[in-house]
Amino acid sequence: MNHARDTGARAWKVAGGEAGANYERVRMGCQSGDQKKAEYRRGNAKARVPSLVTDRGVLTETPAILAFIAQSFPAAALAPVDDPFEFGRAQAFNSYLCSTVHVAHAHRMRGYRWADDEAAIGAMQKKVPQSVGECFGLIEREMLAGPWVMGDAYTICDAYLFTLAQWLEADGVDLAKIPRVMDHRRRVAERPAAKRAIEVETGRAV
Amino acid sequence: MNHARDTGARAWKVAGGEAGANYERVRMGCQSGDQKKAEYRRGNAKARVPSLVTDRGVLTETPAILAFIAQSFPAAALAPVDDPFEFGRAQAFNSYLCSTVHVAHAHRMRGYRWADDEAAIGAMQKKVPQSVGECFGLIEREMLAGPWVMGDAYTICDAYLFTLAQWLEADGVDLAKIPRVMDHRRRVAERPAAKRAIEVETGRAV
Repeated sequence: MNHARDTGARAWKVAGGEAGANYERVRMGCQSGDQKKAEYRRGNAKARVPSLVTDRGVLTETPAILAFIAQSFPAAALAPVDDPFEFGRAQAFNSYLCSTVHVAHAHRMRGYRWADDEAAIGAMQKKVPQSVGECFGLIEREMLAGPWVMGDAYTICDAYLFTLAQWLEADGVDLAKIPRVMDHRRRVAERPAAKRAIEVETGRAV
Repeated sequence: MNHARDTGARAWKVAGGEAGANYERVRMGCQSGDQKKAEYRRGNAKARVPSLVTDRGVLTETPAILAFIAQSFPAAALAPVDDPFEFGRAQAFNSYLCSTVHVAHAHRMRGYRWADDEAAIGAMQKKVPQSVGECFGLIEREMLAGPWVMGDAYTICDAYLFTLAQWLEADGVDLAKIPRVMDHRRRVAERPAAKRAIEVETGRAV
């Protein structure tokens, strides 16, 4: 697996840990340009983390990787993969995180993807506390069933929400407005899979 | 099903048609604020199209809806749903369309999501031909196996790519640089499911 510290890749490390999967320690430096190296690019033309190297080839995109883990480790029951509607609900949550929440967050550090001039990039950064805050407000009120995202069962959605919730402070979101999200973040952090993922990222794992 | 003209909702109308599903004619006006009406909001807190109303509830997010259709109509073989790796590849393609290509496109009309001042919104619009063009260039070179996205089999990925490719002209992309994408768009347009979806959207269907 290719991964960088504190990127979306944490989501599948947490989910993979819950599933009992072993993941190789191949650290990709998101800031250093490592992810553009030729070997990595062969499998991941987009040259972005995260990507998952499997025996059959490379998978990219966090929602797809999370569904792959859930399907590959059915005993861990990390998603209702055999119920098209319930699986669709889980995937809808993850797609929202990927295409709306992560995108809102990305306007803080990666505004150059969508505009060239500095003033525009600054204007994007300025709005991040509001836009990311509105996303998490919606999650708080409408999408986090409790105790886990989908209800009683811990799923791939929890691993992903936990991962994006790491960035709330840096994004300037008012944490007092999202107590249920913060409680969820604390509860996922206490699980061995989350502890292990962070240890691997920070080099503290043996 | 709730749908608006020429939005991402076309993707699942095309895929649903391929699957032999009947979809109800409930037209949602994306520009008119219809999608914020209370009844619609009950099922779709995000108040955005597309959403799919099923017997069991509402599904949102195009990649999730497309996977739901593929799983619900296995005889149509619209995705390799029982092969976690191949399904993961198809889902990765759709996730890229949703979270990168559609997002790049959205900076032309929906810049207000990510910045408040007019100059910044204008700067975002200016970059759309380049950013969307780069996405489709990558699809052209690396992601469209041919003749269909995943290779020999027509899948949900084709319905989605076809849908986003409708916007290339308005996004200012240089079509001469993406001949394979344009050929793909023509071939999908000739299929009965695509013709039917567009007839329903434009009110020409009986």
